Amino acid sequence: MKSRRDRSDLKYFFEPASVAVFGSLREGMGMGYGMVRNLLQFGYSGKIYPVSPYHSEVMGRKAYSTVEEVAEPIEAAIVITPPPTVPSIVEQCARKGVKAVTIVSENFAEAGEEGGKYQQQLVEIARRTGIRIIGPNTVGLYNATNGFLTNPYIIVQKKIRKGNVAYCSQTGYVGMAAQPLGDRATPVSKMCDLGNKCDVDEADLLNYLADDSETRVVVMHIEDVRDGRRFMVAARRVVARKPLLILRPGRSQEGARAVASHSASLAGNEQVYDTAIKQVGAIRLNNWQEYWEMPRIFAYQPLPRGNRIAILTLAGGVGVSAVDTAIASGLSIAHFSESTARSLKKIYLRLSRNPVDLGPILSVSEDPFAVQEDVIAAVLDDENVDCAAISLYVGFEELMAPIVEMLDSLKHRISKPVALWIYGMQLSVLDEMHRQSEERGLPTYLDLETAVKALGAAVRYSRIKSCGE
Amino acid sequence: MKSRRDRSDLKYFFEPASVAVFGSLREGMGMGYGMVRNLLQFGYSGKIYPVSPYHSEVMGRKAYSTVEEVAEPIEAAIVITPPPTVPSIVEQCARKGVKAVTIVSENFAEAGEEGGKYQQQLVEIARRTGIRIIGPNTVGLYNATNGFLTNPYIIVQKKIRKGNVAYCSQTGYVGMAAQPLGDRATPVSKMCDLGNKCDVDEADLLNYLADDSETRVVVMHIEDVRDGRRFMVAARRVVARKPLLILRPGRSQEGARAVASHSASLAGNEQVYDTAIKQVGAIRLNNWQEYWEMPRIFAYQPLPRGNRIAILTLAGGVGVSAVDTAIASGLSIAHFSESTARSLKKIYLRLSRNPVDLGPILSVSEDPFAVQEDVIAAVLDDENVDCAAISLYVGFEELMAPIVEMLDSLKHRISKPVALWIYGMQLSVLDEMHRQSEERGLPTYLDLETAVKALGAAVRYSRIKSCGE
Repeated sequence: MKSRRDRSDLKYFFEPASVAVFGSLREGMGMGYGMVRNLLQFGYSGKIYPVSPYHSEVMGRKAYSTVEEVAEPIEAAIVITPPPTVPSIVEQCARKGVKAVTIVSENFAEAGEEGGKYQQQLVEIARRTGIRIIGPNTVGLYNATNGFLTNPYIIVQKKIRKGNVAYCSQTGYVGMAAQPLGDRATPVSKMCDLGNKCDVDEADLLNYLADDSETRVVVMHIEDVRDGRRFMVAARRVVARKPLLILRPGRSQEGARAVASHSASLAGNEQVYDTAIKQVGAIRLNNWQEYWEMPRIFAYQPLPRGNRIAILTLAGGVGVSAVDTAIASGLSIAHFSESTARSLKKIYLRLSRNPVDLGPILSVSEDPFAVQEDVIAAVLDDENVDCAAISLYVGFEELMAPIVEMLDSLKHRISKPVALWIYGMQLSVLDEMHRQSEERGLPTYLDLETAVKALGAAVRYSRIKSCGE
Repeated sequence: MKSRRDRSDLKYFFEPASVAVFGSLREGMGMGYGMVRNLLQFGYSGKIYPVSPYHSEVMGRKAYSTVEEVAEPIEAAIVITPPPTVPSIVEQCARKGVKAVTIVSENFAEAGEEGGKYQQQLVEIARRTGIRIIGPNTVGLYNATNGFLTNPYIIVQKKIRKGNVAYCSQTGYVGMAAQPLGDRATPVSKMCDLGNKCDVDEADLLNYLADDSETRVVVMHIEDVRDGRRFMVAARRVVARKPLLILRPGRSQEGARAVASHSASLAGNEQVYDTAIKQVGAIRLNNWQEYWEMPRIFAYQPLPRGNRIAILTLAGGVGVSAVDTAIASGLSIAHFSESTARSLKKIYLRLSRNPVDLGPILSVSEDPFAVQEDVIAAVLDDENVDCAAISLYVGFEELMAPIVEMLDSLKHRISKPVALWIYGMQLSVLDEMHRQSEERGLPTYLDLETAVKALGAAVRYSRIKSCGE
């Protein structure tokens, strides 16, 4: 048996050349059937070996009664069968030389004593044979690069856009179908629900993602940590290479109790976690909205060189809350240089202050898009400005084309990080604008405060990188 | 001259039988033209009198060179002409007997000394003649009942749904086109941007809305208060009848400076405002997202009788953050009665705890919708439960019909307040579900934490009402 620390490479889980699927192959409702269907639908091009004692084929593919019937080597397995059957399946896989098993089945340790007994058997098999296990009690993982996924449910109707954000969690909520606000979802590289963590834990996953060239940002939801020291070492490895954002709910006593009941684990001391997260240089997230929204700034934009923000609005009242949020996020409100103030005043007398309220000039300008572009470019050119949160109003369809054109033109004029808030009345228009701006590498948020918070997170990571804060 | 306190009825602003429009009648770009177009588009059925020395007609309607040419009485006026022309226009209106003038034009006190001089003239005319003024520097107001609005811009392409939430602000952001997330916007009764408040101020508006039978919830964004005592009296009048939610940004020193620069007013001491808001029994909002989202719980649902919340999720990890949020919002996590725990256990062994994680049972149930309905109904039937935050997964179109059917059936089974979070992958499906559930009086939020926060706000108001907290 290899030591735990040497076994951190999870590539067979995410990048298997071949996979065995254990689960009912009954057409329609069978979970094994669902997995095969989803693998094909997501374009997984590796070999798929359905395994079932009751069926000889599924979706036109041969099914096997055991993996040992398969002549070729098999790298990974996915299991969704009743708990009493799982240990012998994993044994069978180990004998066959399978490297990585994801156990989707529920009703193990989280369900009580009997399930706990089966889970303990899994732990022993993993220790003895060296086979690695993710789960049980998980929706498992998703790799956007090769379309490999372990989710058997029919909820998966649509491929999530491929990107560079890795989402890890200790809940099935972060399944591949669960990103809220649908098409506005952050493009992902990998997703992984660790489930009951009978073998592979958060430290293993962090080590893998630290090395993963497809992943530029790691976002992790944890309820408990199995080995504090290993976790901190792995987290530091990630932070040295890419930002690590951590959501750990259960701050309140009642929340801690809910954790205990959900993942059959002790929540541990909130203060200990908070200190550890800070010490490794990770950025702590406060809620699920931040979990989904914050990473985009890192996915698309360069890091800011300082903390001085420019805020551009179309209504002064919004600017004030953005200022409050900026201060609370560790940003400072940039003071424009005299030359910037002069250029802005030339455009419109009352434009020289930060936040910049473009409302008055845009409502009277003959060419509001040119004005908006010039103001944004001038502000970001200022040596006293490190980043900007920008509001764009796209109230109706006809505004889309000129604003997209402005964004295209702006892309060549600015190099500092920006975060956008695009608002208006028609959801269809906003969705299309969201797509258009993110296609241009401009992260887009649901409100200006969240855009500002994201820039604050980018500044924090930038400081951690440069001063080892 | 009547005393300020006697002049608080704003009905001529919101419900005029006739209106004069002052502004350029040039087709297309003219601001007066835009107002007439918008009034017609929004279905305002009162008399419209365009006034301009340069045009004799607009959109087939006769234009007048002064209001004095009009034989009939005129109740209201909207003005968007250059500042130097505005005082004489208001004088003209006063002579004609117009009761209420909304001045949309900018560049008054907020722009500097010269503008301040014109604004001072407006103050004097109002004092001398008794004519009331909203603005200047405002997009003015909107009344969903009669389609009356003062916004001249073409951004207004679509009617906001009529509802019972009044939105007031000191920024044009809260114009009728500015509700973010478009079609998901909260249905409104009235909207009003107070602008520079040269005459009508927040206390006048609160008094009007306290009496307004179309308004069930008052939401106000303020940057400064002109007369603290009057404001508190008016706010208390509102709170005695309906919930009052207040957003006052500018908590940070830098935010306070931004307020000063935006509305030419002193921001005042944050602590003073915070205490005053608490003393009158208003609920303080923390950001613009809450400004738009919180009111819906009051718009649609009864008040909770206590603070004990049930949380229903489809994934345990989400429940934990919801618990944290509930505790931070003053809620307590309900302990189910033995009989509820028994019925839940009968449905599924691990269902008896709060938060209720429906994920495991729904993934194996033959009729997940019936199970979900029964669990929701059982939980809300429990005498130890006062309200519930409910997660619904609507991942794809085919799930919509059965879930809508479930909501229809649930409506007859529950009477306590609930807040929903509906999630999934397709925005079009989520939007449709949002519409469907709100049509059924079920407020729907962008995430579970916000749904929980909304219930927390409802509990706070419920306590204020019952104990005069």
